[in-house]
Amino acid sequence: MRYFFEVAYNGTNYHGWQIQQNATTIQQLIEEALSVILRTKIPIMGSGRTDTGVHCSQQYFHADLPENAAISNLRYKLNSFLPPDISINSICKVTDDAHARFTALSRSYEYRITQCKDPFLQNMSYFYPKSLDITTMNEAASLLVGKQDFESFSKVKTDVNNFVCDITEAQWVEKGDLLIFHITANRFLRGMVRAIVGTLLMVGKGKLRKEDFKKIIESKDRKEAGAAAPAAGLFLTAVKYPREIFP
Amino acid sequence: MRYFFEVAYNGTNYHGWQIQQNATTIQQLIEEALSVILRTKIPIMGSGRTDTGVHCSQQYFHADLPENAAISNLRYKLNSFLPPDISINSICKVTDDAHARFTALSRSYEYRITQCKDPFLQNMSYFYPKSLDITTMNEAASLLVGKQDFESFSKVKTDVNNFVCDITEAQWVEKGDLLIFHITANRFLRGMVRAIVGTLLMVGKGKLRKEDFKKIIESKDRKEAGAAAPAAGLFLTAVKYPREIFP
Repeated sequence: MRYFFEVAYNGTNYHGWQIQQNATTIQQLIEEALSVILRTKIPIMGSGRTDTGVHCSQQYFHADLPENAAISNLRYKLNSFLPPDISINSICKVTDDAHARFTALSRSYEYRITQCKDPFLQNMSYFYPKSLDITTMNEAASLLVGKQDFESFSKVKTDVNNFVCDITEAQWVEKGDLLIFHITANRFLRGMVRAIVGTLLMVGKGKLRKEDFKKIIESKDRKEAGAAAPAAGLFLTAVKYPREIFP
Repeated sequence: MRYFFEVAYNGTNYHGWQIQQNATTIQQLIEEALSVILRTKIPIMGSGRTDTGVHCSQQYFHADLPENAAISNLRYKLNSFLPPDISINSICKVTDDAHARFTALSRSYEYRITQCKDPFLQNMSYFYPKSLDITTMNEAASLLVGKQDFESFSKVKTDVNNFVCDITEAQWVEKGDLLIFHITANRFLRGMVRAIVGTLLMVGKGKLRKEDFKKIIESKDRKEAGAAAPAAGLFLTAVKYPREIFP
């Protein structure tokens, strides 16, 4: 019986999503919690990975649970077992072929910048007090939209050999004291959003022109793009699936 | 030359405002920063104290700075020197007799409760998933308004012997997933807001009636009131001064 679990977490204290040796990860804590509660080893499959320190307000994973598993209070038990910075927000039966990673239609991220020092956003935004030309940053960001090769913004060490992503949204929005970059695509490459944000910040500071940004995309060379922006500002905010997987 | 400094801080990692031995406090870090930057010992006087783990989005302190002190970039220097969870938001010249504590007209606090597990509010709210009767909590809260003796809600170990406070606002407001208690008074006793909140939560759960809450106020006995609500939910949000102190 396959289930989708909706999860949110504050990534500050974790070495990202994916299980690894000698470091605490979100996947590891959830698998441990499920296995203790259901008294059998339950592997889980996330819709994607997040890096150390990256946050998530909505991500999904799937797990196959035993027929006799008590689902009605499983969310309550998981939330009691898991630490306060990881929350299971819903559990939903899906069709047997639904796959948290491969069935996903799109992922959305936000990158949050605060230009004023804010004691309450210390690990949940990038404090960047320099002045930024947001109009030009948005003009450059618009060049990202569409189906393109984004190797320029991919970590060099990667086992992927297809760098084409279909970006459907890429824009900066000012919201109170926050400057938020919204980006949605069918898929993302490793380190892609932080590399894009780091490069757009160079545009915002006037160190790159819109034309330079276009050339960086076309170069397919990570060395041409800017440094990755810090993890603390990055939030995975939505993963979308086709309606049919929810019977 | 006397100045008022507006400060905000995330109290999670501090033993409150007031300087003490063998523990890091906000007053201590600010005095150290001022003394290093201005190269002379600068004592500061806060508008009040906050306990370990209590937050503050607006508080003031005053300090007497040397005549020749460079004020124009002092805020920038202080914010660079202070850790990310303490922020100086403004510095303002005041009249020589203005006193951050004694000239203050009122203080406002918020107590924030989240009824859903929220990974991003871990140390910045009280996670309280039980159902609450907010209407009755507000009826009880309205009994607090006015000039009354609030010894029932004061820490027993205190050097104060006047327990009369003039509360001008005491109400619960729902804001998204947060339930926020707003309280304003001319002065507060030690531990007062957290004791009031803890007692109002007993009203909300149906363990005390509105009439019981009235009797608790009248008893002037801390033992009659409920346990203090946790520090993480408490925010000092505003301190008001008469206009005349700003020349």
